[in-house]
Amino acid sequence: MHKIAVILSGCGVMDGSEIHESVIALLAIEKEGFAYECFAPDREQPKVVNHLNNKLENEKRNMLVEAARIARGRIRDVKELNPNDFEAVILPGGFGAACNLSTFAKDGSHASVLEEVEKVLKEFHKQKKPIGAMCIAPNILAKVFGNNDVELTIGNDTSTARKLEDMGAKHIDKAADDIVLDNKNLIVTTPAYMLGTSLKEIESGITKLVKAITQLSRSKALIQNLS
Amino acid sequence: MHKIAVILSGCGVMDGSEIHESVIALLAIEKEGFAYECFAPDREQPKVVNHLNNKLENEKRNMLVEAARIARGRIRDVKELNPNDFEAVILPGGFGAACNLSTFAKDGSHASVLEEVEKVLKEFHKQKKPIGAMCIAPNILAKVFGNNDVELTIGNDTSTARKLEDMGAKHIDKAADDIVLDNKNLIVTTPAYMLGTSLKEIESGITKLVKAITQLSRSKALIQNLS
Repeated sequence: MHKIAVILSGCGVMDGSEIHESVIALLAIEKEGFAYECFAPDREQPKVVNHLNNKLENEKRNMLVEAARIARGRIRDVKELNPNDFEAVILPGGFGAACNLSTFAKDGSHASVLEEVEKVLKEFHKQKKPIGAMCIAPNILAKVFGNNDVELTIGNDTSTARKLEDMGAKHIDKAADDIVLDNKNLIVTTPAYMLGTSLKEIESGITKLVKAITQLSRSKALIQNLS
Repeated sequence: MHKIAVILSGCGVMDGSEIHESVIALLAIEKEGFAYECFAPDREQPKVVNHLNNKLENEKRNMLVEAARIARGRIRDVKELNPNDFEAVILPGGFGAACNLSTFAKDGSHASVLEEVEKVLKEFHKQKKPIGAMCIAPNILAKVFGNNDVELTIGNDTSTARKLEDMGAKHIDKAADDIVLDNKNLIVTTPAYMLGTSLKEIESGITKLVKAITQLSRSKALIQNLS
């Protein structure tokens, strides 16, 4: 069965991967007839946030170990992600996508991206395999593909959108249940909880994102068979 | 909007609430036109399990604080759950349902249930409001409603099923995408990951469970209006 890689950054909206977005993405992948495999950086989280009171906790957690909760233990270090084995890659949101995988939350348009994440994304792009990102995760694509005129959305937040444009991306306002499909770069984005207020709403956008990615992947296979 | 209460026990299959089951239940509730509110005991978890290597961690985590990750911060102590305010209550699975909410994992048919959880379940039952449980969580219903000839399923695991029958329940084997509906007790159960091997499969069972619960709730409202 064809596989899609999902890169997580922890477990929880405030310091890792947004849980609802991650689970809905995994479900949508299965519904499209693909298998998924999860990955995360084997690194300490920069912070741990108490999700009940929003305060910083004085403790250490590892991104891969925490993301294993979402993946039910079936997860590997992102350094082991070989794009040859996958049809596409998807990045759910959550602050982990702006604090753990990149430094966007503190550095804005001067953000850097974890080298192991940047490396695999560039390889997927080079192999013309689709890349999906939701919520705040498109910041990573703006940084890595800003020089490729990448088109993307994080919803309609002007201040965040401007930072992505400063990194070279073209931002397009979209509703929570919608997507931006950048056909040139094979990049698909959806605002998810950057804008959405219900699970039903973000499920709609994430399902569209996964459908677009699997269609791109199938079209590519078709073109290769024809040529 | 009518509300359904969801009782969580942490965040992660090995020491809390199973994340996929919880998120799919919340989504299914929204899709049926109900709102959800999450609750969890404000207590320390008996154990913390590293979900990457399955080993016990030497650290402390609180059920309510961890469950807040699944609930995106919108969660309250189960002691604040007033059944008058809700149409039904649902218990997702994960080992937390057998280690945190009850002692079933170590005590089997001699298990006890956290008093604050037992109290609200009895009140929902007394008010003739539906109760749903998935995966291993039906152990809690066997303990609390064993004397009411409760019918339920945890899938087809003979050893676990026998323990539930020793507690007074009638166990019915079911597939992961199916449910047992106990019309007398207004209790609905589905095996979820006790048996399921894919998100798609457990989504099917959990969606049926939530539909059955909302239908029971709507029928009750209809009968009350007619009488």
